[in-house]
Amino acid sequence: MLALMNPQPKTVTTLREMARATTIIESPRLAERLGVRLTIATETFQHTGSFKFRAAYNVASQVPQSKIITASSGNFGQAMAYACRLLGKSCIIVMPDTSARVKIDAVREYGGTVDLTNVNLKSRNARVAELAQEHRDAYIASAFDDPLVIQGNASLGEELADIKNSFDLIIAPIGGGGLTSGLITGLRKAGASIKVFGAEPLIANDAARSLRAGHIIANETEPQTIADGARTPSLGQHNWAILREGLAGIVEVPEERIAEAVRLLFSLANLKVEPTGALSLAAVLTEPELFRDFSVCCVVSGGNVDTEVYRELLGQ
Amino acid sequence: MLALMNPQPKTVTTLREMARATTIIESPRLAERLGVRLTIATETFQHTGSFKFRAAYNVASQVPQSKIITASSGNFGQAMAYACRLLGKSCIIVMPDTSARVKIDAVREYGGTVDLTNVNLKSRNARVAELAQEHRDAYIASAFDDPLVIQGNASLGEELADIKNSFDLIIAPIGGGGLTSGLITGLRKAGASIKVFGAEPLIANDAARSLRAGHIIANETEPQTIADGARTPSLGQHNWAILREGLAGIVEVPEERIAEAVRLLFSLANLKVEPTGALSLAAVLTEPELFRDFSVCCVVSGGNVDTEVYRELLGQ
Repeated sequence: MLALMNPQPKTVTTLREMARATTIIESPRLAERLGVRLTIATETFQHTGSFKFRAAYNVASQVPQSKIITASSGNFGQAMAYACRLLGKSCIIVMPDTSARVKIDAVREYGGTVDLTNVNLKSRNARVAELAQEHRDAYIASAFDDPLVIQGNASLGEELADIKNSFDLIIAPIGGGGLTSGLITGLRKAGASIKVFGAEPLIANDAARSLRAGHIIANETEPQTIADGARTPSLGQHNWAILREGLAGIVEVPEERIAEAVRLLFSLANLKVEPTGALSLAAVLTEPELFRDFSVCCVVSGGNVDTEVYRELLGQ
Repeated sequence: MLALMNPQPKTVTTLREMARATTIIESPRLAERLGVRLTIATETFQHTGSFKFRAAYNVASQVPQSKIITASSGNFGQAMAYACRLLGKSCIIVMPDTSARVKIDAVREYGGTVDLTNVNLKSRNARVAELAQEHRDAYIASAFDDPLVIQGNASLGEELADIKNSFDLIIAPIGGGGLTSGLITGLRKAGASIKVFGAEPLIANDAARSLRAGHIIANETEPQTIADGARTPSLGQHNWAILREGLAGIVEVPEERIAEAVRLLFSLANLKVEPTGALSLAAVLTEPELFRDFSVCCVVSGGNVDTEVYRELLGQ
């Protein structure tokens, strides 16, 4: 009976049916401003507003468990909640009890159970471990360090490889490395030799330091970059194995370039993006000579941003 | 020689190749909030950021003249400038000398010649007439009242008719009536019987009053609605002939509903829209019972909005 009640495990093909195709935007004015041939691939209109749905849906559809537990105060939690709703599964999302009301509401509206934790008394990982003891039938999902996450994000790489008159290079935000390793995996699977660059906040540059050192280096404390999707402590092990030899390079982006990219995308491309999503365009602003005259695809990873934060960025 | 230098007249088929397909967005959270099955068709990523490109390109490609003159302080001017650039034609856009710098810059960056006029001394139409005398070889283009405008906008109606699991009804902003009459024309051409509703600001409700009266009624003065694309003095004659019997109805939208729709599209659909573009969603907020449980397509007409105006709307 249980086997019947659970949806059939889905393949990546099914993910490509379920995920919304990425939205391709062109802005000649922005391209002229940057001095590159520019294509924007935005995941802001992906289900739940970020690329994370690709990974979440792939995880939730591939694992046999009908219950999933994960810690996320951001996009992965919303994505997992909605993926589980679509699949008839249940999930518990562990969030700090200081999370913004809009983020808690979003997870709940997508159908997830929110578990609020006082992170001063107990870390999120400790709370997840506790819940895992209580729910021994549940799958504990990582937001980035899981082959199923990479496989899910690879669907975006395959999509970008399919585009006619393709690109010289693709730039994408790098936090835990799930998106960039997925892009590399998908492009390779499709037989495309497009280079992939990571765009990382300068004040959260553990991935750039890892690439220079030849091994994973973690941030000592959580870096307070405005690009909150890149506040991850370090690259994931699974991702590192792909990135160490597959990534063409990492651009380290100052905070003010992130804000400038948010404003340029607003005014010249009509695009609402979250700060993390603006990192790829900010990388072109930071290293214009590196990219000049190339055909560049900037991946915008998501659009979910607090209204007041966004108003402040626009007003700067 | 001249005939060779001018591009060949284009057909609507070619417009459909040149125009970007409209961007379809779904937001289950927004749909649940509104109580309708909701699809958003947004023209914010159309070339130059609004549906006006469809009309402008159709006009510029169909008329034999290689020079076009029009009065526009808004989206039609940018659209015409870019359409002419693509077609190797030239254009003069008459704008009030009080126009925002960003709007003047946009027309110039798209390749148009800006003619700044002190509208206290000379109306824009008087200035256009003056320029028409100087440039007797130019085509004088209307932003909405021209069969070629309707034909251009019809391409959006055809696109929407092509969508699988189509809609019960489509709601679109109404100002001069070019968009709604184009939608009706395109849907009919495609053999679709989807109803079309107009969404008009309550304080600029000349179209609603015209429909009630059975003849065109003009606004006495320019209505100061925040939806500046709907500040047109009256419906166009060509549009009226289609709308008087083809429109299912008009919803008159209070200003505060427009602002609310801008915020909802921002927070629940990651969509940056200009106030005029938010009118269709605002119509559902204004008359929820009229649309409840129907499959509704809200057309977002454009996204070009002054940053400060937008920040204020978000902050309300």
